[in-house]
Amino acid sequence: MMTTPCIENIKNYLLNFQSNFINTFASIDNPECVIIDKWKKGNHEKLNGNGISSLIEGEVIERGGANFSHVKGNSLPPSASIIRSELAGKPFQAMGVSIVMHPYNPLVPTAHANVRLFTVQTNDNPDDLNKNVWWFGGGFDLTPYYPIDEDIIYWHQQAQKCCQPYGEHVYPDFKKQCDDYFYLKHRDETRGVGGLFFDDLNTECGWEFDQAFNFIQQVGNTFLESYFSIVKKHYQKPFTQQQKDFQLYRRGRYVEFNLLYDRGTVFGLQSGGRTESILMSMPKHASWQYNYQPDSNSPEGRLNDYLKPREWL
Amino acid sequence: MMTTPCIENIKNYLLNFQSNFINTFASIDNPECVIIDKWKKGNHEKLNGNGISSLIEGEVIERGGANFSHVKGNSLPPSASIIRSELAGKPFQAMGVSIVMHPYNPLVPTAHANVRLFTVQTNDNPDDLNKNVWWFGGGFDLTPYYPIDEDIIYWHQQAQKCCQPYGEHVYPDFKKQCDDYFYLKHRDETRGVGGLFFDDLNTECGWEFDQAFNFIQQVGNTFLESYFSIVKKHYQKPFTQQQKDFQLYRRGRYVEFNLLYDRGTVFGLQSGGRTESILMSMPKHASWQYNYQPDSNSPEGRLNDYLKPREWL
Repeated sequence: MMTTPCIENIKNYLLNFQSNFINTFASIDNPECVIIDKWKKGNHEKLNGNGISSLIEGEVIERGGANFSHVKGNSLPPSASIIRSELAGKPFQAMGVSIVMHPYNPLVPTAHANVRLFTVQTNDNPDDLNKNVWWFGGGFDLTPYYPIDEDIIYWHQQAQKCCQPYGEHVYPDFKKQCDDYFYLKHRDETRGVGGLFFDDLNTECGWEFDQAFNFIQQVGNTFLESYFSIVKKHYQKPFTQQQKDFQLYRRGRYVEFNLLYDRGTVFGLQSGGRTESILMSMPKHASWQYNYQPDSNSPEGRLNDYLKPREWL
Repeated sequence: MMTTPCIENIKNYLLNFQSNFINTFASIDNPECVIIDKWKKGNHEKLNGNGISSLIEGEVIERGGANFSHVKGNSLPPSASIIRSELAGKPFQAMGVSIVMHPYNPLVPTAHANVRLFTVQTNDNPDDLNKNVWWFGGGFDLTPYYPIDEDIIYWHQQAQKCCQPYGEHVYPDFKKQCDDYFYLKHRDETRGVGGLFFDDLNTECGWEFDQAFNFIQQVGNTFLESYFSIVKKHYQKPFTQQQKDFQLYRRGRYVEFNLLYDRGTVFGLQSGGRTESILMSMPKHASWQYNYQPDSNSPEGRLNDYLKPREWL
């Protein structure tokens, strides 16, 4: 059965995914670790947004957020679509869920995922997607502090399994896009060990609506399952103050990436998005240390070897 | 006597100012709090840089840096001069000192200063400034956590005194530019309580070389004197953990400004500058808290009133 390509279906999926995700992680954390905030922003034609921000701050997840947002605007910013410049200036909608999880324990990686739908109105009925332009984007990536090969291989196996039904080229292609995107040029390092990243999934590049929407759901489910399994494996392990300090130092890099390079963050802040929701991706604590260069044989120095693209499968 | 307008004179002044500044602050801090790093970057025609980074990490200054750098390139980036687009692409030199000081005690403000000279080669002799295009830029600004009116008035009085010999319009003009520049749009707040900010000081806008260079020196001296006097007044005062936490929270805003908006930082990182020197402006620790809104009558809430432009004199 074909899914009716309408905005409400996607919205329902995204909201379910969001609460499912947060509930799963809340189940292993302390009670009352979740804050849910409904918000609205703007009430003019130019830009209108609403959303639900779910924040998790507990003993397992030091700071995490799953943010649903739905923005309607009367003029698509050129930065929203690199390959679709002819659509700039038209009415648009953007809807998605963004997740960043910063666990307390430095032995547990930080992780991020995003699934989103853009639609641009080229027809009188903005909600009938058959008659308008749409595309999906998203992905997930993992940022370990003390990387464990087994976990990373599992992470990429899961990513590959998620992509496999959609074609042999999908995993290698989206894996490469992930390595390219989550790259800190000024540090010459990747943000972490990668995963998947994609944008502009639509009919023109061979993705029917149904197929693309199914894929998006698969991406969300895979992220939840894979990351939860990695968190459960390590979150109760003892760690040292030195490891915690190193985690905070590396979180400085996460801040650098998000504020200097992340298109969603920079675009969101510049276009008048809801600052507190966008910056839920910031860690609770971060630190900087001048010219810190751990011994390449130390566990901290070993991380450098993981911050360049590598074939994991 | 006219100063000979040559690069070496400026360089000597900048290096003296840098070591004078760091020595002054080191005199009230613990021994061995200063790290001096000479560096070179690039050895090709496109971009060549060298510099001296002076880092101070002690009990009074948790993290501070005074960074001298001298960069030569074969093609001026368009972003280097907003008002001089016809010079883009020509050989250039940029030389300056940048200072950011993050004291340990939350009752002491953070402060920043910068003095810089750009020259663009339009003649065969790159070092004879009479025959090439040059301009000075710079300024200083203060970022208190627990603002004290008396200090801020003193800060602006010193700024005014520094500008006064150069014309009545200079202080109000450069003060306004400071308020405009150090503004976080996504937070709708200024970085702090301002000071001076200016760019493109040159003959075209009425500044002879001698006059501009004298002014730059005055700016450096005023900053050192005023900030040192504010630090000495407060650094030994007792403070609470709550005040320290608030300082770290506000330092998150400092990070946001520098990575999202600061032209020097963003330009420096994008153009292949020395990352560790550029990011000496980062605090040692910063934190983020979701939707933190202190009671407007609390000392923390009171800060909001100071984060909009105000006439202090």
